Amino acid sequence: MKKILIVGTVAFDEIETPKLSSGKILGGAATYIGLSTSLFHTESSIISVVGGDFNADYLGLLKSKRINTNSIKIIPKGKTFYWKGKYHKDWNKRDTLSTQLNVLEDFTPIVTRQEKDCQIIVLGNLHPAVQNSVLKQVDPKKKLVVLDTMNFWMDNNLEELHQVIEKTDIIIINDEEALQLSKKESLFDAADDILKLGPSYLVIKKGEHGALLFGNNQFFSIPAFPVKKVVDPTGAGDTFAGGFSGYLAEKNDFSFEELKQAVVRGTIMASFCVEGLGTSAVQDLELNMFAERLKEFKKYTSY
Amino acid sequence: MKKILIVGTVAFDEIETPKLSSGKILGGAATYIGLSTSLFHTESSIISVVGGDFNADYLGLLKSKRINTNSIKIIPKGKTFYWKGKYHKDWNKRDTLSTQLNVLEDFTPIVTRQEKDCQIIVLGNLHPAVQNSVLKQVDPKKKLVVLDTMNFWMDNNLEELHQVIEKTDIIIINDEEALQLSKKESLFDAADDILKLGPSYLVIKKGEHGALLFGNNQFFSIPAFPVKKVVDPTGAGDTFAGGFSGYLAEKNDFSFEELKQAVVRGTIMASFCVEGLGTSAVQDLELNMFAERLKEFKKYTSY
Repeated sequence: MKKILIVGTVAFDEIETPKLSSGKILGGAATYIGLSTSLFHTESSIISVVGGDFNADYLGLLKSKRINTNSIKIIPKGKTFYWKGKYHKDWNKRDTLSTQLNVLEDFTPIVTRQEKDCQIIVLGNLHPAVQNSVLKQVDPKKKLVVLDTMNFWMDNNLEELHQVIEKTDIIIINDEEALQLSKKESLFDAADDILKLGPSYLVIKKGEHGALLFGNNQFFSIPAFPVKKVVDPTGAGDTFAGGFSGYLAEKNDFSFEELKQAVVRGTIMASFCVEGLGTSAVQDLELNMFAERLKEFKKYTSY
Repeated sequence: MKKILIVGTVAFDEIETPKLSSGKILGGAATYIGLSTSLFHTESSIISVVGGDFNADYLGLLKSKRINTNSIKIIPKGKTFYWKGKYHKDWNKRDTLSTQLNVLEDFTPIVTRQEKDCQIIVLGNLHPAVQNSVLKQVDPKKKLVVLDTMNFWMDNNLEELHQVIEKTDIIIINDEEALQLSKKESLFDAADDILKLGPSYLVIKKGEHGALLFGNNQFFSIPAFPVKKVVDPTGAGDTFAGGFSGYLAEKNDFSFEELKQAVVRGTIMASFCVEGLGTSAVQDLELNMFAERLKEFKKYTSY
């Protein structure tokens, strides 16, 4: 078993879908990643920042999942990061209605001595300069660095993003982001290019169409779990990254065969995530439900 | 080993892609289906019609693949069915530049006594009235009927199409067609509806995203083979249907487990098809190349 250090947002989300409005609920990349890792045999710690308006219950929820929240800094006079988004009939499209950085604006993560002991670092979607500041506090060569990012940083902070990617072992992005990052037109060309930037492995998430794993001159392709009814896709990517990293921490084996298995775990975790509003499905998930779906998925994809 | 009867077009195609113009070349659904079945241990026979302008060499090619062409009627004074299409950078979009039905306009397939002995009937994309006329000449309950169709017939001849689907065992269509046929918004809802129309099984092809198999309260999902360089997608769906049917004929076992394997064979056959212009890659395909890719695919998709 290995320790995971998660750096990312702990936030308020407000989500609108064709069927519902969530009101202000728990969100944030680090929240989803943390909850998702907690299903695996590992110790996770979150570095983040929230305002005085953040609910103590939410921190309690994370603690109840054995997630170390000591490094979630509370700024009493500040306001928590807030994101509001709207989904359409086609779940692949969403509009950001509001982004209020609030306390995130001055977020300077500090890695404690205890956290420096971690074996896996998961960098949730954040400003690449912030991600980089974390890697400067540890020896990234001695850690498995898993990176999530998004098109916004490719548009606005590409150079700083490249500095993070250089030190990354595994980058997890979606198909559109892979094409944008590489400026290529096919995912296979994109993968070749992205692996040249530094990472040993690349996971490309394709939503309802599954995921691809590249690296070490090997390749793995897996469909998505067939979710009958999507309620809210928010956090699915983070939940994927959490399941992926949680499994690797539990196994303590970073071979291609285990990375394949990790992609499968990420896929299953994400399939639960989209079935509930916000973090609800992930936080309610029990080990036997996960094991059942994993078995079902194996049946659906084996021949 | 079982005999396959294929009903569909044998035609001239003219294909434009961003990189090349084919000129007038061999095409037609039955051509691709036939060539694809010929890689398997089965006897295929094609019912079709061509004009006096059709190249004897093309018929020779089919014969050289052990395909019975006796029921490809030649109308000396007629012209062969001609289709011209143009692909764009995004291979999923194509424009039909010209369709000349010619001899196909009066095509009335006649199933010979010998052909009535077949165990599998593959109805290539054609006017549903023509497909139906074939089924009226045999006892479809005693055959495995595999149906391909397209959105054009859903738009214009839905009632006749339903009559064919009623008698079909396995329907093979793409994702857009499945949504259109069912008027549903998700492929899973679509599958439920389509299976109620009569078929025991449904295969939904998703192009670069793989294929789904539904039926008998079971489900199978498989990614596509990772094709690095697409040259021409024409005929990929027909080639899939041919590989699928050819495998089933060879195995003479229509269980769900074998249907899964058939979907895999269809997937592999289609991956070769798109790597060459027109029928070139399918007609040049040798058994060892196929076996090699099948092995590779297994590696890419197993965990």
